[in-house]
Amino acid sequence: MRKQFRDLASPEAARETIASLELTPDTEMVALSDARGRILAERIDAEMDVPGFDRASMDGYAVRARDTFGADEADPLELELVGEVHAGTEPDVEVEPGTAAEISTGAVMPPGANAVVIVERTEERDGNLVVYKAVAPGDSVMPAGTDIAAGARALGPGTRITPREIGLLSALGLDEVPVRGAPVVGIVSTGDELVRPGEDLRPEAGQIYDVNSYTIAAGVEEAGGVPKLYPHAGDDYDEMERLLHEAAAECDLVLSSGSTSASAVDVIYQVVEERGELLLHGVAVKPGKPMLVGTLGERSAYIGLPGYPVSALTIFRTFVAPAIRDAAGLPEPQTATIEGSMAVRERYAEGRTRLMPVGLVTDGSGETLVYPVDKGSGATTSLVEADGVVEVHADVEYLAEGETVTVTLFSPDVRPPELLGVGEDDPALSRLLDHAPSPRYLAVGSREGLRRLRDGVPDVAVVAGDSRSDVDAVELGSWTREWGLVVPADNPADVAGLGDLVDSDLRFVNRDTNSGLRTELGTAVAALAEERGETRHELVEGIVGFDSGLKAFESPARAVLSGRADVGLGLRETADALGLGFVTLGEQPVRVVANPDRTEKQSVRRLRELLADSDDVFESLSGYESE
Amino acid sequence: MRKQFRDLASPEAARETIASLELTPDTEMVALSDARGRILAERIDAEMDVPGFDRASMDGYAVRARDTFGADEADPLELELVGEVHAGTEPDVEVEPGTAAEISTGAVMPPGANAVVIVERTEERDGNLVVYKAVAPGDSVMPAGTDIAAGARALGPGTRITPREIGLLSALGLDEVPVRGAPVVGIVSTGDELVRPGEDLRPEAGQIYDVNSYTIAAGVEEAGGVPKLYPHAGDDYDEMERLLHEAAAECDLVLSSGSTSASAVDVIYQVVEERGELLLHGVAVKPGKPMLVGTLGERSAYIGLPGYPVSALTIFRTFVAPAIRDAAGLPEPQTATIEGSMAVRERYAEGRTRLMPVGLVTDGSGETLVYPVDKGSGATTSLVEADGVVEVHADVEYLAEGETVTVTLFSPDVRPPELLGVGEDDPALSRLLDHAPSPRYLAVGSREGLRRLRDGVPDVAVVAGDSRSDVDAVELGSWTREWGLVVPADNPADVAGLGDLVDSDLRFVNRDTNSGLRTELGTAVAALAEERGETRHELVEGIVGFDSGLKAFESPARAVLSGRADVGLGLRETADALGLGFVTLGEQPVRVVANPDRTEKQSVRRLRELLADSDDVFESLSGYESE
Repeated sequence: MRKQFRDLASPEAARETIASLELTPDTEMVALSDARGRILAERIDAEMDVPGFDRASMDGYAVRARDTFGADEADPLELELVGEVHAGTEPDVEVEPGTAAEISTGAVMPPGANAVVIVERTEERDGNLVVYKAVAPGDSVMPAGTDIAAGARALGPGTRITPREIGLLSALGLDEVPVRGAPVVGIVSTGDELVRPGEDLRPEAGQIYDVNSYTIAAGVEEAGGVPKLYPHAGDDYDEMERLLHEAAAECDLVLSSGSTSASAVDVIYQVVEERGELLLHGVAVKPGKPMLVGTLGERSAYIGLPGYPVSALTIFRTFVAPAIRDAAGLPEPQTATIEGSMAVRERYAEGRTRLMPVGLVTDGSGETLVYPVDKGSGATTSLVEADGVVEVHADVEYLAEGETVTVTLFSPDVRPPELLGVGEDDPALSRLLDHAPSPRYLAVGSREGLRRLRDGVPDVAVVAGDSRSDVDAVELGSWTREWGLVVPADNPADVAGLGDLVDSDLRFVNRDTNSGLRTELGTAVAALAEERGETRHELVEGIVGFDSGLKAFESPARAVLSGRADVGLGLRETADALGLGFVTLGEQPVRVVANPDRTEKQSVRRLRELLADSDDVFESLSGYESE
Repeated sequence: MRKQFRDLASPEAARETIASLELTPDTEMVALSDARGRILAERIDAEMDVPGFDRASMDGYAVRARDTFGADEADPLELELVGEVHAGTEPDVEVEPGTAAEISTGAVMPPGANAVVIVERTEERDGNLVVYKAVAPGDSVMPAGTDIAAGARALGPGTRITPREIGLLSALGLDEVPVRGAPVVGIVSTGDELVRPGEDLRPEAGQIYDVNSYTIAAGVEEAGGVPKLYPHAGDDYDEMERLLHEAAAECDLVLSSGSTSASAVDVIYQVVEERGELLLHGVAVKPGKPMLVGTLGERSAYIGLPGYPVSALTIFRTFVAPAIRDAAGLPEPQTATIEGSMAVRERYAEGRTRLMPVGLVTDGSGETLVYPVDKGSGATTSLVEADGVVEVHADVEYLAEGETVTVTLFSPDVRPPELLGVGEDDPALSRLLDHAPSPRYLAVGSREGLRRLRDGVPDVAVVAGDSRSDVDAVELGSWTREWGLVVPADNPADVAGLGDLVDSDLRFVNRDTNSGLRTELGTAVAALAEERGETRHELVEGIVGFDSGLKAFESPARAVLSGRADVGLGLRETADALGLGFVTLGEQPVRVVANPDRTEKQSVRRLRELLADSDDVFESLSGYESE
């Protein structure tokens, strides 16, 4: 039943197909106060003169110019003062020959008068005006329409409305203006397991929060569209069909992001085929291969996005956002792309265009370095590790280190982090980073952190424990933290040390092998083995769960808190913070070390200062000491 | 009573004083859907694991890894199929030794199982599962917390929220987030003569629409503040005082823009002195000398802006917007400044910093040229002629032609026009420009247009009439238009030609001397004089109002329409459009000529195409013909 699309479309064909969709919405009227950032839909001609009257442009006296002929300092003239005219009032006086009327800046020239003598060249004496200077017709008078004349072209169609255009429109008295309509973009979520943020989540039933709908909605808004989220239909396919029809009727474009359920995809297919036309299925790009493009009903277009968050945002940014911007009449912001050079060599040979998510970092000389992230992991965290996308064409086999590439940022508002750190997960570090200027920290563990520092991408690595390594690095500062075994609040199993863990059946939760805390535990186990005359392997075998490995410093403690484990590897600080018991096994140093080429980078210098000046942070945490 | 501020403050001192004002608003909670563009006020740590359960990452079968030991293509194993688990549902099956459960991507791993065999490596046979591949514990399983672990640092304070951050926040289930509050900025308008756009205007009473309030409100919004417009108090000073108190209580900052009334300024002075502190009065900048900075009440700051629209926006952009952005935590957008080179030499020697409004244009080689506009005219139209401001320091005597300057744009959204045209005002031209890409056209008249073209700033000039000139220019296209005398609909005075105007007392309205239409009229008068054997001067003396000069092509006709004049100089098209009578005096050519260095500029080529291809525009207008 499905149409056959044997060949994947090229990215260029996909762009053309999407550009051919009719998204352009009707012109709409918006209030002047909401017009900023919109695009004027029509030419605005002035319907009135500005000013609408002959206006005094100085404080002084309205006169007939002819009456002042010959007046000068040596030989002043006298005129009879017949009244005054203030700004914002209608003159109730006429200037007959031989008379003058006091007038303030902005006031209407009274009948008869054709010039203003500025106040500095006059004197009032006995109710008369003494004039010390002759004026010509029109002196200090701004005739009606001087600023904007009725009938004149004021602003053209396609003009982006910024504060200054708001000013001109106000001058014309307009309180609403015709602007390009913003395309309405429906977002349909199709996963049975998805729950809206803010609602209760049942993880035991496999529920997760809906990430793509909100990310894409924000992207739609940023591109000048109006996002409309539809409630999700769960596994009710009739309801899903109904929602798609509803969205097709209400929106200029409908987006959905990849469902894990093949049946859901079938429903979408069927609706697109029955109510519109499937234009394209499958594009030769990675990610995004299964991308679907079609029409839906009379007036709507449909684009199906991949399911992984970074992939969905990548495809949205590359193919969909430009179409929304076009429909809204908005230019691509200048800050939407950035040039940089590859920090590492990256091979690629899949024969289709790769949209490579990348992170950015600035090197010591201020150059932007680009490095690949998220190789298809699907992790949500990659969303904030990746700054944008590099499009690598199908015939490119590799990108050399140092090669210049263009990065399309995920948002024109994305700025590269000022500091890129990698390494151990630590609560004191997390607090320090609150004061660092725009940091990005990837908690990949001490071992992986050092490896990455050696590869030259990050500015700094954070290493816990005794880390003899051959990585060339400059120490910026250090502290110590107390580590050990986290147990329930009242320590029901009376764990007193590592030996108790080995000798019991207690369920233990370890950290991952990159963690400096796990390395420290391994060292302690080895020492205990030597003391007992056993092998390290024998001891490890006695610990139920030693091979488990959770990624974050609080995770084992949280497993204890929830009753999923009896003992967890962790920090005194964590145990205290969560109200759990703690059995100390020692102290370990945590060191912050920098790439030697980056020590003069401003953010690195700032981090060094922070480390030298943050005793209060360490004092506020249990088991911590600054060194 | 006023404090004496004998010396004007330096611009640096003004910046410091404004920076010292306490504008930073409290943290506020906003819905996730409104969070884009805001600045995170606090660190967000994950409160939960993502995913919150051990998750199958492929479609297949959940098994105990140990049970698959030794399985391969040649020697498959069989397991008993005991059920299935779908994404979004709680497993109702336990995987005992020797059994397997079907599982879909995203589903919860059932109790007992610790790995997934992907569907491609299995076969179902008689209700049993045939496994062709051994798996290790954890294969195709994403453990709880792999993506984000509870307790991990997710986002730091100061993070700008873009779509990707929205994604991470959704993953954490947050439907509202703490963001830096946006400073509330009150705008008080003080002119007696000001009327809000959309309301009725009484020009005869000297009323004009309020320009600054709306311009500044849009600027406040753009800088990340929340503008709050207060109704204006007219000339009721008690009411003005009351409004200032109200605004001081409700806002973080109160702005007003210069009133023409000295009394209004006095009221503001008094309120600032009584309820706060006057910190600064007068800054050594042009414009903006009388700028006022102070505190107002307990919590608000006050800044008084100049009255002319371009001056108000200049001072706002230079001194106030940075303070609002700081308070909102927003960085200065990268597009807020642009480099260019001076198109003309500009002298300046006033001994104080000049904030010079400038326009931008691109030359033939793509370089940005900068030229001064609005030398204190106060015209609202200057708002859309000026793109930004160049700060010229007090000790700079002149800027040389070609000198590089930095322009602070009036808005980060301002882009230089792609086409800069100057010259004659014409309705056909106005329609053509609707199709030109981002044009700016200054209707300065034919004569002034040619002068500016010679000076090298604009791309094109539009010249009406017989224009022998020594300006080196390339003609892009031309048309003719019928011109003559516009009279009331029924031509009550039976005007048949120029002679009737000379011989009558009819009130005539002319165009300005830069207009090609006026030059044409002058030529016709000279011809008539010769015919009659009189001097040109004698004929002109006979025309009541010959020396008047309105700026726009419709203005004289509108004067006739309103009864302010009996005859106006104009076009047949205008007379027809306004339903007036018309007495033809001839046809005149209108030519579009380009700067020879700009003919290859894309916008100029586009204009040439438009001229060649717009017969429909000329046909739709009365008395027009394309050439």
